[in-house]
Parts: sequence; structure tokens; C-alpha cells
Amino acid sequence: MNKISCIVAGPRGKMGSEALRMIEKDDTLELAACIDRKHEGERVQDIDGLPSMGAIIYTDAEICMQEVEADVLIDLTTPEYGYKHTKLALENGIRPVVGTTGFSDDQLSELRQLAETKQLGAVIAPNFAVGAVLMMQFSKWASKHFPDVEIIEKHHDQKLDAPSGTAAKTAQLIQEEREEHKQGHENEKETIEGARGANYDGMRIHSVRLPGLVAHQEVIFGGLGQTLTIKHDSYHRESFMSGVKLAATEVMNLDVLVYGLEHLLD
Amino acid sequence: MNKISCIVAGPRGKMGSEALRMIEKDDTLELAACIDRKHEGERVQDIDGLPSMGAIIYTDAEICMQEVEADVLIDLTTPEYGYKHTKLALENGIRPVVGTTGFSDDQLSELRQLAETKQLGAVIAPNFAVGAVLMMQFSKWASKHFPDVEIIEKHHDQKLDAPSGTAAKTAQLIQEEREEHKQGHENEKETIEGARGANYDGMRIHSVRLPGLVAHQEVIFGGLGQTLTIKHDSYHRESFMSGVKLAATEVMNLDVLVYGLEHLLD
Amino acid sequence: MNKISCIVAGPRGKMGSEALRMIEKDDTLELAACIDRKHEGERVQDIDGLPSMGAIIYTDAEICMQEVEADVLIDLTTPEYGYKHTKLALENGIRPVVGTTGFSDDQLSELRQLAETKQLGAVIAPNFAVGAVLMMQFSKWASKHFPDVEIIEKHHDQKLDAPSGTAAKTAQLIQEEREEHKQGHENEKETIEGARGANYDGMRIHSVRLPGLVAHQEVIFGGLGQTLTIKHDSYHRESFMSGVKLAATEVMNLDVLVYGLEHLLD
Amino acid sequence: MNKISCIVAGPRGKMGSEALRMIEKDDTLELAACIDRKHEGERVQDIDGLPSMGAIIYTDAEICMQEVEADVLIDLTTPEYGYKHTKLALENGIRPVVGTTGFSDDQLSELRQLAETKQLGAVIAPNFAVGAVLMMQFSKWASKHFPDVEIIEKHHDQKLDAPSGTAAKTAQLIQEEREEHKQGHENEKETIEGARGANYDGMRIHSVRLPGLVAHQEVIFGGLGQTLTIKHDSYHRESFMSGVKLAATEVMNLDVLVYGLEHLLD
Repeated sequence: MNKISCIVAGPRGKMGSEALRMIEKDDTLELAACIDRKHEGERVQDIDGLPSMGAIIYTDAEICMQEVEADVLIDLTTPEYGYKHTKLALENGIRPVVGTTGFSDDQLSELRQLAETKQLGAVIAPNFAVGAVLMMQFSKWASKHFPDVEIIEKHHDQKLDAPSGTAAKTAQLIQEEREEHKQGHENEKETIEGARGANYDGMRIHSVRLPGLVAHQEVIFGGLGQTLTIKHDSYHRESFMSGVKLAATEVMNLDVLVYGLEHLLD
Repeated sequence: MNKISCIVAGPRGKMGSEALRMIEKDDTLELAACIDRKHEGERVQDIDGLPSMGAIIYTDAEICMQEVEADVLIDLTTPEYGYKHTKLALENGIRPVVGTTGFSDDQLSELRQLAETKQLGAVIAPNFAVGAVLMMQFSKWASKHFPDVEIIEKHHDQKLDAPSGTAAKTAQLIQEEREEHKQGHENEKETIEGARGANYDGMRIHSVRLPGLVAHQEVIFGGLGQTLTIKHDSYHRESFMSGVKLAATEVMNLDVLVYGLEHLLD
Repeated sequence: MNKISCIVAGPRGKMGSEALRMIEKDDTLELAACIDRKHEGERVQDIDGLPSMGAIIYTDAEICMQEVEADVLIDLTTPEYGYKHTKLALENGIRPVVGTTGFSDDQLSELRQLAETKQLGAVIAPNFAVGAVLMMQFSKWASKHFPDVEIIEKHHDQKLDAPSGTAAKTAQLIQEEREEHKQGHENEKETIEGARGANYDGMRIHSVRLPGLVAHQEVIFGGLGQTLTIKHDSYHRESFMSGVKLAATEVMNLDVLVYGLEHLLD
Repeated sequence: MNKISCIVAGPRGKMGSEALRMIEKDDTLELAACIDRKHEGERVQDIDGLPSMGAIIYTDAEICMQEVEADVLIDLTTPEYGYKHTKLALENGIRPVVGTTGFSDDQLSELRQLAETKQLGAVIAPNFAVGAVLMMQFSKWASKHFPDVEIIEKHHDQKLDAPSGTAAKTAQLIQEEREEHKQGHENEKETIEGARGANYDGMRIHSVRLPGLVAHQEVIFGGLGQTLTIKHDSYHRESFMSGVKLAATEVMNLDVLVYGLEHLLD
């Protein structure tokens, strides 16, 4: 089987460099080129901190996609660049795999249309951690049978926002799925304010911040005499790479744009 | 809406008496009669330890089903009695809901045929704990993306068998679903025998037995930089009753026999 | 060895009846009599819901303690009765074991003095769950080395107050032990109010309330690259009885009043 | 306050390089020199992968300790070198802090004697993870009150031995502390061999090996209606550095040899 040939945009970023390391070790993917704002014409191996790979770096995305024969663009840049790169990729017959939450509805519609016209697969995903995406899907499902649910998420104490985006997203998915439900005792009271956590449609979300922690979430469902808990622990950034690989593989079998990794996980 | 009228077989058993208490509190179910080996003609409320309900106890299942107008038979007896009662129920136009692992394939075929002929719903379930059944379904699904998995189950120290039936069943479901996979390091060695647990197709199962524990299981999936854990804690026998209620409700909308609660949980 | 002979005050209460069941099964304790507001002269076995024990019930505590030869009074009533019973016990040469948080400092001083004068042991404990008391002691100790700590406590959704008394007490003990410490990032912000929980001297306390849960607490300490967690799960009221037994046994070796089970756990 | 001046032996090892990074960030420690088998006369900053620190590297430990004014030797080499370095340090008025399990009883006696003669503190520790050492101490204590205990340890699937050294050590400490106790049901049976784990004096130890995991252990104590769990999660090698710092600080106040970090944690 031929390897899937990839262009990586954003190779010096945290996610981008992790993607290079993943491709380096993988038997089914290979690196064709990189797109970066700097280092025109240099090789990946010349850049401090990047793996020993010989692929060339382009600063002009359009030229890159025209010159290089590639199957897939893996874009781990910003929403602004990501949008431009995605369009260019589709126009040049390259299937885009993009990690972002930042595209507008209009941009998504336009890209969806373009993918359909070109009959090219495309994957745009807010979250590439397969375990986190499964946790959310299982939570949606469980909430149909256990409408009483609370979320605890734990992160290192350098994280500034609470609750985490994943926790809020999980609560939103549950709200959309479960039947209207009033949760908790109507007379409960907090003797110290905040004890019962953030209130999202009655679901309480609790954010723990401690040194040592990495990124953890558990979703706890309570019912008669039992609880069901779905927990995801991310210990390292490489946890996102299984999703990037899955997307890069599956996009080859698609001829439309898919939004959200969950559609590749059935 | 009319309440669903139920006959309970096995009212003095642990599960049967719990079912009576569940029906007593429930707004959508009502108790029509009981079937027991003893106490012919007595009322439920006359039996020590049972709730204050006026329903009559029959020792002859056939007479009971002919005389009493009921929608559903909830059978929580033994495989032997359960089989007879299920047949009688279907022949008398009553939908059976049966908790058992003990029917043979032949018996299941015959009952399935009978349900179809009579165009009556029937639910036969090895496990009525909705949370445990969901745990198994999620585990099946997760194993497609995380083939490396181990199971820890914890029970009180009066339990004699290890691993638990639920743990073995979970492993079997995963084995059927995941791609062939060799798990663990080939050179790993136990310096004390048994440390790595029971080996089920490479999945290790660990059984903890301690006083104080009730019934707990977690299924842990490991992948690059992350783990995904699905955990069920059962604190009380009433945890099974949400499944009994679900089955008694859903069986009214069925006209075939369904084996396994999971088919009612989609 | 002679059994320790006990009078139980409050035999029909949740804790009192549990204490009777514990004594019934125990090889080293025996029941001498009970003190109750009702049922003068009846036997324990005559009261609905109590175990089959022949001991007599007294409504007059003073007469009971004068007539009955007993080693220990186990008082599981209210602060008001408990105070009177404790005094009477000491005056009658009986060692009191009392579960209460409700005695005033003056009352405690007086009882302490009385115990000393009589050279009789006495144990007064706000919490008889040995596991919970150990959790608090370990937490105190750990906080010397890990000053960053958060508490998660989980209870059934019929509990009205948040946080639980045990969580607040744990935080107080840690505050007294750890060096002055500012915890969490100074710029953290809640995008949904309450996400970061109740603030007790910088320690965040999170209260989960769900059906199915019983009584659970975990204390999480974070440090460089690691976390240390101390967790107590109470599944049943009988969890308090190991502490009652311990106190009833140890009080026989004391000749002063001891406040708090932790002093018997070294 | 003057900083504590440290010589680090083994600067290119996993632990040694972590120690350099810790010292670089720390306000109370400073690096005086390093001892290595190679790189005589070079500076730390000249070695690939080490932090930008100007301290000189010596290949001759004796010359290093004679020439450099230092308070503490931090030795993270092998038992063989560690023994020589420890002796040299004590003879040169430098307090040794050594991470090893490999010294013989004779060597320990000799070093203990030497420290006493010189009236110099010394710390030799098999485990520098403060959280893990506290977990073991708490477990010892808890086992006096909860003699029924099992251990679950979880590591990445590249670990070859099961159970882990920490798990075996924990079990040994509990065995020494708890009263003789027979644990588990005498009639329990394994339907799949190994389900009940490794048997260490009746305590069962369960070893989980999965990709994604780092190093985790929980010690579960069961009693009437309750469980008490002590859990340590190590997410990164830097978790050992808090113990190294603690030892380097406390050794300055000692005038004897101390074996085991637990003696510095009271």
C-alpha cells in the first residue's frame, strides 16, 4: 500500500511538531513538505527541536500545494491561516485535515460547498483527542437513560479559564440530548458560596486546578442505587495525534467535508 | 394514560421484592397479582418483609394468567420456572419481561417463535442494571479505537467467583468487536504469580475482594498519551429496577422477543 | 476475657439501632440495657425493627445506671440528652462513649473535670467513621508537604447542605497545619460562576449531589509532576460502627476524657 | 540566607538532568560542580540537553570534592559509584544525598559510622517521590485499623516487571505493621487463573499495563460499610525532585545518616 503523503502547516507549533513526530514513526503516513511563515527552503531537520526529516519548508502555501504532490494537508495553524490553507488545498486536489474551533458558519458552508464540487474529502475537527470525543459521545447517549449528571474536570493550575471548553461542550451535548430535566434538591443550599459548582442547565460543573495535574475529565451519571462514570485522562499532547492520524486516513475515503471527529468514530 | 398492569413472579426473592417496592412507588406501573410457590390466596401485605400492597398471590401460574387481566409478566424466578411462565404468558396474551441467563438456545428459539406468532412483545435480559449494560456497550464501541484494555472489578469479600460474570461478559463483547490484537509487552514477567491478572484474549481482568465494597467495575482503555475509563458502581440492588421498569414499559411497544436490555437502550 | 457490658441510649435511632446490630454480632461486647424515651420495661426484641435481644429498656436514665451493672454507656441521642447521660454515667462509674458535635466548651470542660475526678475514661467523638477520621489525619499530614489541595465530596441528592461537614472540617484541619499558602493562579477566571467551587482559605471544595451516591470524599494534593489522593467511601451506616466498637474497647483503658476518635488511632 | 551549594553526580542521567533543572529554578539551592565519567573540564551548558548553567564538570570525584566548596553532594549514579562518592563526600566535609536501593547492609553500617564520626548529615533514599513515600506511610498506619487491603498499580506497557517495586514495598510495610490477618473468603475460586492477582501475605496486588499510563498506585482498605483509598499518581519524572530538594535542605540540619525519606516527613 502506498503511504499517504502529507503537507503539515504549522510545523513549529506544539501540535504541529507533535504531528511531525507522529508521522516520522508511522508506517502509513509520510511527510511531503511543510508550510511555515519562516524558514523558506530549509529542511525540517535544520530547525531546532524538530525531528530529523528531510522535507522542505515553504513559506508560500499556494506554491507549496502546486509544486508538491501530496494527498493530505494537515493544518495546525490559526483559524485565519487555516481557512486560507483549506481553500487552497481543495482547489489543488489535496484533502484538508484541520484542527480548529474558529471557522465561522459562512466559512464552513463555503468550504463544504467547495469540497462537494471538487468531490474531495475534508475533515475539520475542534478536538482531535479520540478519547475525549468518545467521552462526549458516550455522555450524550448515557444522558438519555441517566438524566442526572455532574462533570468534574481537573487541570494544572496554570490554566486560567474555568470550566474547560471540553466540559462546557459536554454539558451542551447532554442538554441537547436529554429530556428536559430538573436536577438536584430544590431546597439545597450552599453554606460556602460556589460549593455546588457552575450551573449549566442544572448540570453542575466542578473545575479542579492543581500543580501536577495534566488534563482530566469525568462525567458522572447518577441513578437508582448506581452511578455510571466516563473518564478521560490526557497525560501528554501526543494524545491528540491518534485523532490526526485517524482523520488523515479516513479523509482519503471521503468525498465530502466532515465537521467533528465523532463522525469518523462510529 | 392507563397504568401498565403487572404480574410479578417470585415476589419473595431479593429481586422480586425489590420489584414490588419499585412498582409501589411508580406512577406508570401497577401490581395486578403475584405468582409464588406458597401463600395461595394471601395478599402481598400479609407476607413478612413485603410492601403493603393488596394484590393476591397465586400458586398456579396458569390460573393466575387466565383469571387476572394483566399487560406484563415480570418474572424473577429461576430458569426452569421462568421458561414455563414465559410460555404461559405469551399463550395468555401477556407480555413477559424475564431476568435470566439460563435459557437454552432451543428455548429461546421456541419463545421467539411463539412471540412472533402471537405478535406479542417479550424481553429476556441477563442483566437489568442499565448502567452496567451501557458500560458494556460503550466498552464495545471504545475497543474499536482503543484495542488495549484491562478490566478491574471490585466486590465484597463474600463473593466466591473471580472474575465476575459481568467482567467476563465485557471482555467477550470486546473480543468480538475489536480487531485481532496482541496486548502487553512480550517480555513482561511476573515476579509474584498472578500480578498481571486473568488473561482473556490478552485483556487482563483484575478482581478485588474487600469488605465494604458492593459491586463495581471499571474498563480502562489505553492509547497514546491518554486513557479512557468507563466505570459502573452499583451501591444497592435497586439499581436493577430501572432496567425492569424500562423493559416493562418498552415491551408494550414491541411485537417480537428481544434478548438483552441493550436493544432497548439505543 | 469478659465481654464489655454496654448500655445503649437511643436504640431506635438510625445510629442506635445499628449499634445494637453491631453488639449482637460482636464477640467482645454485650448489651446490658437500653435507655429510651418510650417503651419502659419492654425488651429490645419487642420493638419493631430492632434485633432479637432480651435487654430491658429504661426510660429513666438514672435508675438504669444505678440498677444495671455496665462498663460502658454508648450514647447516640441528642446533645441535650447526651450531656445528661454522660454526667450520670461518670457519676455511676460507667464509662461514656458519645457521638455528638453539639457539646459546648463549658460542658466539655465540666465533663473532662468529672472524668478526671472519677478517674474514668470517656470518649466523645464528632465522627465515628474510622476511615473518615483517618482521611482527615492523613490530609493534615500531607498538607505539610503538599500545600496545594482541593476537596471533592459526593453525596446523594437528598442532602441539603453543601459543602458537607466533613469537607469543611478537613479544610479547617489543613488550614491549621499547612504553612500560609496562596493557591491557584491569580488570574484565573470563571466563565460560569461557581466553577471553581467553594473557597476555604484558598482550598476549593466541590460538592457533587446525585441520586445513587451514598457518602464519598476525596482530598487531592498536587505537587510537581504528581498528585496524592486520599479517598473515603461510605456505603452504609454500619461504617460508623467500627469506630463505636473501637471507642467502647479503648475507653476501658482510659482514665481521662478523650475528644475525637483520632486520639485512639495512633 | 546563603544558598545551599550542591555537587551533582550523574548529570546526564534521567534523574541527574532533572536535578539540574530543579536546581536552576530553585531559589535556595545552587550548583557548584558536577561529577561525570566524561566531559572533564567542560561546562554543563556545553552538554547537549542540559540546562544553561556554568558549573564545571569533573571526572575525578576526589579532586572535585577537594577543590570545590560545596555543602551537599547529590548522587544519582549507580550503587557502585554512589558508595564511593558518599564516602568521599563525608571524608571531605560534604553532606551526601543519595538515591539508591543498592547499598549492602555492610556498606550502610560503614557509612552510618563515618557520618557519626564526622558529625555530618547524610540522606540515603530508595525513593525520592514524596507522594509515594507518604502513600506508604499512610498505608502502614491505615492497616492497623483496616487489615483488609489490596493494591492496584498501573504503569505504561513498556514496564517489564509486575508487581512494581513500590507495590511490593508497600505490601511489605503493611505486613510488618498489621496484626496477623487472614484475608479474603476461604472458598473463593478463580474461574480464570490470576484473576485475584499476586498474593503477598494475603494482600492481593494487581498490575495494570497499558499504553498512555505513566506510574500510578492505589492502596484500598476495606472495612464495615466503607473503603479508604490512598492513591499516588506520578505524571512526570520531576515528581522525584521535590524529595531531592527536601533531602538537600534537611541534610543540613542533620548530624547522622538517615535511611529513607519517610524520616524527613513527620
